[in-house]
Amino acid sequence: MKKLLFVYLMLIGLFVLYVYQYQTDDTTNSQWSDKELRGTIDENYVMVTFQSGIDYWKRALKGFEDAAEALNVSVEYRGATQYDVNEQITVLEQVIAKKPAGIAVSAMDPVALNDVINKAVDAGIPIVMFDANAPDSKAFSFLGTDNYYAGTAAAHKMAELLNEKGQIGIVTHPKQLNHQERTNGFRDTIASDYPDMEIVATQDGRGDQMTSKEVVDEMIRDFPELKGVFASEANGGVGVGQSVLEQQKKDEIRIISFDTDKGTLDMVEEGVISATLAQGTWKMGYWSLQYLFHIQHDLANDVEAGTNLPRYVDTGITFVTKENVDEFYPNE
Amino acid sequence: MKKLLFVYLMLIGLFVLYVYQYQTDDTTNSQWSDKELRGTIDENYVMVTFQSGIDYWKRALKGFEDAAEALNVSVEYRGATQYDVNEQITVLEQVIAKKPAGIAVSAMDPVALNDVINKAVDAGIPIVMFDANAPDSKAFSFLGTDNYYAGTAAAHKMAELLNEKGQIGIVTHPKQLNHQERTNGFRDTIASDYPDMEIVATQDGRGDQMTSKEVVDEMIRDFPELKGVFASEANGGVGVGQSVLEQQKKDEIRIISFDTDKGTLDMVEEGVISATLAQGTWKMGYWSLQYLFHIQHDLANDVEAGTNLPRYVDTGITFVTKENVDEFYPNE
Repeated sequence: MKKLLFVYLMLIGLFVLYVYQYQTDDTTNSQWSDKELRGTIDENYVMVTFQSGIDYWKRALKGFEDAAEALNVSVEYRGATQYDVNEQITVLEQVIAKKPAGIAVSAMDPVALNDVINKAVDAGIPIVMFDANAPDSKAFSFLGTDNYYAGTAAAHKMAELLNEKGQIGIVTHPKQLNHQERTNGFRDTIASDYPDMEIVATQDGRGDQMTSKEVVDEMIRDFPELKGVFASEANGGVGVGQSVLEQQKKDEIRIISFDTDKGTLDMVEEGVISATLAQGTWKMGYWSLQYLFHIQHDLANDVEAGTNLPRYVDTGITFVTKENVDEFYPNE
Repeated sequence: MKKLLFVYLMLIGLFVLYVYQYQTDDTTNSQWSDKELRGTIDENYVMVTFQSGIDYWKRALKGFEDAAEALNVSVEYRGATQYDVNEQITVLEQVIAKKPAGIAVSAMDPVALNDVINKAVDAGIPIVMFDANAPDSKAFSFLGTDNYYAGTAAAHKMAELLNEKGQIGIVTHPKQLNHQERTNGFRDTIASDYPDMEIVATQDGRGDQMTSKEVVDEMIRDFPELKGVFASEANGGVGVGQSVLEQQKKDEIRIISFDTDKGTLDMVEEGVISATLAQGTWKMGYWSLQYLFHIQHDLANDVEAGTNLPRYVDTGITFVTKENVDEFYPNE
């Protein structure tokens, strides 16, 4: 009987030790500071876009989701299905009505969303802008591509492709500010850094493949020595590619384009487009969520605050060439 | 005896339940994703500056420390004590030799540190630049003030103070790029947005209080109608303040200065300097550490990577006026 008692006591003793061990471990693991970067699953952050079905947003949403995983919060994707600013306003109002923990918005129009954005911020819902800004709204920060810088990078790449000499053309979309900036960056850099390169023509492709093809057909006729074309947007780039293919100038004319839709990537793979500029959309999504989390958890409020967060983040560009094009096709 | 056995069994049963409970709890708490934003205390990140003793770095270091607390890692502060680039190179080499988890560097010279920075990056030590960049190095990102933008903000503030009319002077330090940018931003904005304001003089204060006072003494003699002066750096601002005080023009001339050293803050409190621009130094430190952590933990590597991180972050500026100046004095 005493033996049995002893065994019981031993067992109890072991359990006590075991439990004690657990408690100690747990205390160590839980030594989180007040500033811990960990939310709760019922904390819901929303990304709001326009033309919400296009591929362009996929990597931004992936970044948003990756940050949510890291921060242990939930995310939701919403957007105007069409290129329609009133639809985007309606969607944003519906999202705000649910009082989410924060919203990342890409603005279809730089002004039209200001009222609804400001209403949300005034109601205590954090908003950051990504990809396309609403600069006069009360949104806390903007994360997107510095288009002027992207234009300068494209110019340096073109110089590298052409050994710093030759005639170049530009196909752009002069009504949109982002395209003006890309074109200016490209033009200023060629003018200041490459005396043996010359921009002989700048044409309006209207963001349209067919129009872009036609203006380049003409450009090639006017300038038979043309060595390169910079297209400031994706439809234009594909149009330039078609023109160059049709006129059997593939080996003579280097094309640099913008963005990474399937048509563009296919032409990069075939060697028709030498390089295209991928925007940092994953980064836009990832850091947007980080910023919203920091506002929601009151983590970035030093004395200097005011906006609490960096005013502007240039998410940068990456060149896509034949070497790395495979990585840019979306995973089906 | 049977009773005693029953009691023992109950006790054991309770312990088993208790332990089981603990295990369940623990599992829930430990459901961390692979992307969790939590490091270990032996993970050491270092901030490296120059003139390391000056107040200017204190808020940047506070941001670095706050991020370290949030991420559960350690930080260290090092720097050249003097304004001496060779000393900074030596310090950086010493830091690298200890193989830290990452280094945030403010470069005394935009070129001289490139070799040592590149050596570290090649050896797998993440480096980001803050406040002062080394743009051609292999550092992953730069976080600092967009000085041109800061100049435009100063111009809008000056317009507000002067009801958009009157003669203005500038005291700057034309040999330094950051001061050229501030001056250009200020000048371009006045020229494009405020037809009734005119910049009548731009003088070199050489970053020196005495020189700045003297050039403004002269400016006030030459332009008795002078209504405002923008000083692009702190010593200049204090010199301008002294000149205006001495010539009893305190109520007639508005001064906008830069940074938040004690002399400047005192003059803001006394109403001699109307506003000064505080740089986002806390943000530089906080987000530098976040970025280094993300490289070290391989958390920001989408396909678009290349640099892994935003190329550039404008940490923005905040106006310090009589209303909020108290918050900007360092806590003694």
